[in-house]
This record gives sequence, structure tokens and C-alpha cells, in this order.
Amino acid sequence: MATNKEHISKQFDADLEEVRTRVLQMGGFVEEQIEYAIEALTSGNEELIDQVITRDHRVNAMEVSIDEICNQIIARRQPTASDLRMIMMVIKTITDLERIGDEAAKIARMAKLIYSSDRMHIPRFNEIKHVASIAMDMLHKALDSFARLDLNAAAQIVRQDEFVDEEFRSILRQLITFMMEDPRKISTCLEIVFIAKAIERIGDHAKNMSEYVVYMVKGKDVRHVTADQIEQEIRE
Amino acid sequence: MATNKEHISKQFDADLEEVRTRVLQMGGFVEEQIEYAIEALTSGNEELIDQVITRDHRVNAMEVSIDEICNQIIARRQPTASDLRMIMMVIKTITDLERIGDEAAKIARMAKLIYSSDRMHIPRFNEIKHVASIAMDMLHKALDSFARLDLNAAAQIVRQDEFVDEEFRSILRQLITFMMEDPRKISTCLEIVFIAKAIERIGDHAKNMSEYVVYMVKGKDVRHVTADQIEQEIRE
Repeated sequence: MATNKEHISKQFDADLEEVRTRVLQMGGFVEEQIEYAIEALTSGNEELIDQVITRDHRVNAMEVSIDEICNQIIARRQPTASDLRMIMMVIKTITDLERIGDEAAKIARMAKLIYSSDRMHIPRFNEIKHVASIAMDMLHKALDSFARLDLNAAAQIVRQDEFVDEEFRSILRQLITFMMEDPRKISTCLEIVFIAKAIERIGDHAKNMSEYVVYMVKGKDVRHVTADQIEQEIRE
Repeated sequence: MATNKEHISKQFDADLEEVRTRVLQMGGFVEEQIEYAIEALTSGNEELIDQVITRDHRVNAMEVSIDEICNQIIARRQPTASDLRMIMMVIKTITDLERIGDEAAKIARMAKLIYSSDRMHIPRFNEIKHVASIAMDMLHKALDSFARLDLNAAAQIVRQDEFVDEEFRSILRQLITFMMEDPRKISTCLEIVFIAKAIERIGDHAKNMSEYVVYMVKGKDVRHVTADQIEQEIRE
């Protein structure tokens, strides 16, 4: 019986290793999508813009396929306790990764609109680049924290998320000023509002992902709580 | 053995009934949140605005608690095949319901901004009311389709989603015109843009929910496909 259990556990470990590798591959691909989307936005490289948009279907396919593998693992290995929590963490994580992919494609579509119309003033996107770099750092930390089951990143990510939200509001105020000064810029500014919003949502998804890791490790659900409460949880 | 299996199956059915009832309760509560948010927005009833915002934590609590029940069912009953797909449908459905709740709270927060600032022109929100009524109909259909495992609604919801997306773009064009005509209206118009965006996202979530039902019933993943393809799937 012990041998049998060990055998099942080994199979389960192998399955899990496979699924975790796939999630990290998906995560790496999604990181690339955001990076390319921001590069395409700031450079106006239309080929890169189209590449981000067409590659989005690969993110979707990865989600569907990892989901399927998770269902098979549950059905075959019938995991309980922390093994089950691990699978649940994966299922939730890939949903957020897929939505981050959607936001990257959205940024690329907005870039297309900005460059395709015959407009005089293409802004320099300095603030957008800055807030995007923070959101990308959050995603990278969330993936690291997933890979290593490291809780220290979680509270850090929640705090970065608050910063990204503040930056979004500051960009919004700036854009409102631009629009008031020159109503001909309203359309372009609105597209930049949607880009800033997409970046803010990428931060939200990275935050969700880090919370699943806390749930996996501590067995406690820390969604919908503050950074202070999460730090408390981790210390306990 | 057969008796034992039947016994397990009966327990499982009872568990499932319990969890489905809870999802429908959560769905009803979320429907109410959208309804109140739109009513609060159009009437300017500040008490109602605050009520929507403070009630959002109950949506979050419902998600966490149903999630926990699902984990317990998987660990105890070790469901496979369609039973497992049912649980997976529930887990994904409540994630979307929780996010719809967030959008309702967002609408209420925007309403608060619109009414709290000393502005002369509060618009009549006719277009917003119209598109919100369609998004609410989509959510209602998605919940019905979840309750009855009825596939006919799915393709219908996907088509309604396309209509909501078009309406969003039309509202956006209208708001751009308003902003250009009177730059003093820019802040209010931007808040209405975010409200329209929130409604459009409610439609997206309802669409996700209907796709999970197709997956549950047909065992095929129809995320990321067109309405035509879904109709094809259902006919097969």
C-alpha cells in the first residue's frame, strides 16, 4: 500500500512538474506580449503591432490546453489537500494570464488606432512606459513566486498594485488637461486612457496570481484583503 | 459495490445541488448590484450608491465560500468526467460573477464622482440604461442556462455581446463629440466612458459564463471561438 501510494505520488509529482513548466512557458509568452505591445506602442512599428494581435490566439490555446491537463490530473490522481490546492492555483493562474494576454492585445490595437489615423501629435508615452515597467515587474514577481512558492513577493506585489493605481489616476489627470487644452487631441488621449487602463488591469491580474500562491502555501484565502493583512498572514 | 457507488453518487448529487443553489443566490445578488448601480447612477440617489459599494464585500465573501465548498467536494467525492466538469464550471462561473460585482461597484463609484462634484450638466444616461439592460439580460440568460444546462442561450449571448461591443463604440463616439463641443464636460464624459466600459465587461463575463455551460454539456471548450462555431457545436 505504501509503495502504491508512493507510486501514485511520483506520478502526481511528474504531472505537476509538467503542468508547472507549461504555466511558466505561458507566463513567459505573456510577458513577451506585454513587452512587444509597449515597444510597438512607443516605436510605432506596425509589424510588431500586428504580431502582438495575431499571437494572442496562442495565449488562448495555452490556457485551454493547461486547463485540460489539470482536469485530467484531478480525474486520474484524485489529489486532496495541498496537491489539490496546487491544481486549483494553476487553474486560476492561467485564467489571469489569459486575461493579461487580452490586455496586451488591447494595447496593440490601441497603438494601431493611434498610428493609423493621420494625427500630428504622437505623444512620447514616458509615463505609460514607466507604469508598464512596474506592471511587468509585478507579473515577473508573481511568476517567480508561483515557481518557487515564495510568499515574500505577495505583499510586495499588493503594494506595487496600489502604486500602479495611483499612477493611473495621475496619467488620467494629465490626459484630461491635454484634452482641455486642445480638443483635437481628445481621440488620441482617449486611446491612451484605455492603454493606461489595460496596464492597470495587468497589475490587478498579477496581484490575483500572487494571492493564489499565498492560498496554496498557507491554505488561507487572502483575496479581497489589504497588504497589511497579507503581511500578517505571511508572518504567522 | 453498486450500492456504495449509488450512495456516493447521492451524496455527490446533494453536494452539487447545494453548490448550484449557492451560485444562483450569488448570481441573483450580483444582478441586484448591477440593477441598483444603474438606478443609483440615473437617479443620483446617494444612499443607493453607497449601498452598492459597501455590499460588494458580500459578493467577494460568496466567491470565497463557494470556492471552498468546491474544493471540499473534489477532495471528498473525487468526481470524474461530467461531475468534475460541473465543479469546474462552478469554479469558473463564480470568478466571473465576482468580477461582475466589481464592475457594479465601479459604476457606483463613478456615479459618486459625477454627483459629488459641483457640475451643471448631468446627462440623462439613456444610452447607458439601454446597453445596461442588454448586459443584464445576458447575465440573466447565462444564469438560467447554468441552472438548466440549456445550450440555446449560449449562441444568443455571444451575439448580444457583439451588439454590446458595438453600442459601447457608439457611446464612445457620442462622448467624444460632447467633449469636443464643450471641454468643461471632459471629466464627466470620461467617467461615463468608464461606466460604459464596465457595462461592456459585464457582457464579456456573461459570455464567459455561457461558454462554461457549453463546455460542461458538450465536453468541448468553446472559449475563444465565434458565435457561428458555437451554434455549430450545439447542433452537433
